[in-house]
Amino acid sequence: MNFDNVRIVLVGPLYGGNVGSACRAMCNMGLSDLAVVTPRENLDMDEAHKMACHSDHILENMTVHEDLLSAIKDCTITVGTSARRGLYRQHAVTPREIAPKLTVETDNSKVAIVFGREDNGLTNNELTMCTDILNIPTATQNTSINLSQAVLICCYELFVATETFEPQEEKSDIATMEMREIMFKKWRKTLLKIGFMHEDKADHMMYGLRRILSRGQLTQDDVKILMGIARQAEWASGDYQTKYETNKPK
Amino acid sequence: MNFDNVRIVLVGPLYGGNVGSACRAMCNMGLSDLAVVTPRENLDMDEAHKMACHSDHILENMTVHEDLLSAIKDCTITVGTSARRGLYRQHAVTPREIAPKLTVETDNSKVAIVFGREDNGLTNNELTMCTDILNIPTATQNTSINLSQAVLICCYELFVATETFEPQEEKSDIATMEMREIMFKKWRKTLLKIGFMHEDKADHMMYGLRRILSRGQLTQDDVKILMGIARQAEWASGDYQTKYETNKPK
Repeated sequence: MNFDNVRIVLVGPLYGGNVGSACRAMCNMGLSDLAVVTPRENLDMDEAHKMACHSDHILENMTVHEDLLSAIKDCTITVGTSARRGLYRQHAVTPREIAPKLTVETDNSKVAIVFGREDNGLTNNELTMCTDILNIPTATQNTSINLSQAVLICCYELFVATETFEPQEEKSDIATMEMREIMFKKWRKTLLKIGFMHEDKADHMMYGLRRILSRGQLTQDDVKILMGIARQAEWASGDYQTKYETNKPK
Repeated sequence: MNFDNVRIVLVGPLYGGNVGSACRAMCNMGLSDLAVVTPRENLDMDEAHKMACHSDHILENMTVHEDLLSAIKDCTITVGTSARRGLYRQHAVTPREIAPKLTVETDNSKVAIVFGREDNGLTNNELTMCTDILNIPTATQNTSINLSQAVLICCYELFVATETFEPQEEKSDIATMEMREIMFKKWRKTLLKIGFMHEDKADHMMYGLRRILSRGQLTQDDVKILMGIARQAEWASGDYQTKYETNKPK
């Protein structure tokens, strides 16, 4: 995906705070091309800058247009968003459904995602100018999403579709089977030595311990900690072992 | 999924507007259980109500706690969110990855998703109290997501994972192959009659027309409109046909 080829278009926004929040959402998801069509006169730009939070550059480079066509004239796909259903809103898709198509299209040309007024959405005339109509999934009891929240979901689905994000990776390498088995062997020895279990129940108890420690992959760091605990417990039980040997029934 | 078994926990929120926006986002996605841990003294509740927008009931039923454990004590999974990486943040997953696990868990018990302070996130101590750590995908240039936007993405992924949402469905039934063929036959006849094409080029032109009208399924309403246009063009060309027949070279 070419992130520079995605334009977010806000038609008739009423609140500067929403415009600023939309900038921040765009920036979070790697987008920067914002167009605004006939914003409210005296749109509160102080509020917009307050909410933009490290994305003021988007606000400052925002283009302002007198009608929707002017804002989308160089685009080959225009997606109109709508919470309402009915006339001209047939064939609606979800952001997740359309994201792959948009990411491919941006390799060669510009695409626009268009959001309507906070109170009234897009007009039928504006919607007919779009190549695709988009419904954001919501629960039926409250389908009215805040403008900047709607922008976020669309940008987020585009960003996730690029599959570039990798969540935090484990810093320590995953333990091999051999490391795990050495560790379990050590625990078996220690648990016997400290008198936690007897030899005749040892296999059964070790199944339990393995179950607890096998809910996911153990890292090499995890194995080191577990080895350390077993070693220390064995060492600390030196006294216990002596007492036990001395006092055990003859 | 049992929506009543998902709790959103905000730790130390500073801005009432964010708490209100979080309520709206939760409501959009069908959730209603909000817990707040040590909110700022004099949290701006007017601002919270202003942003809650049709979700005031969530704000009014919000529980307030003195520490995180009190807010999550009845939960069996607690997911901590973190934008930062590093200590105690290993094994992080994305909201999309963890959503199926959470939706299944809610059938039997409560789960919590925990969000940190606007400025500092969750402390290491708070994160170690969580069973899972979550990273929300963002572009690297701006990883700091607004609190209510972060809440929205998590709630949205849970809601979408339930697969209950169906985008706007086409009201008209899809046209059958027979309807399509009758319509294309009518167009062929009309395009010949109005002199748009000659018989020797007719097949070629009809391939072009079929290509244009086969970018997706046609509905029965679509077919009716296309039939109507062909009929009307044929009727209106009555004069043309007469003129053409009269004046054609002998």
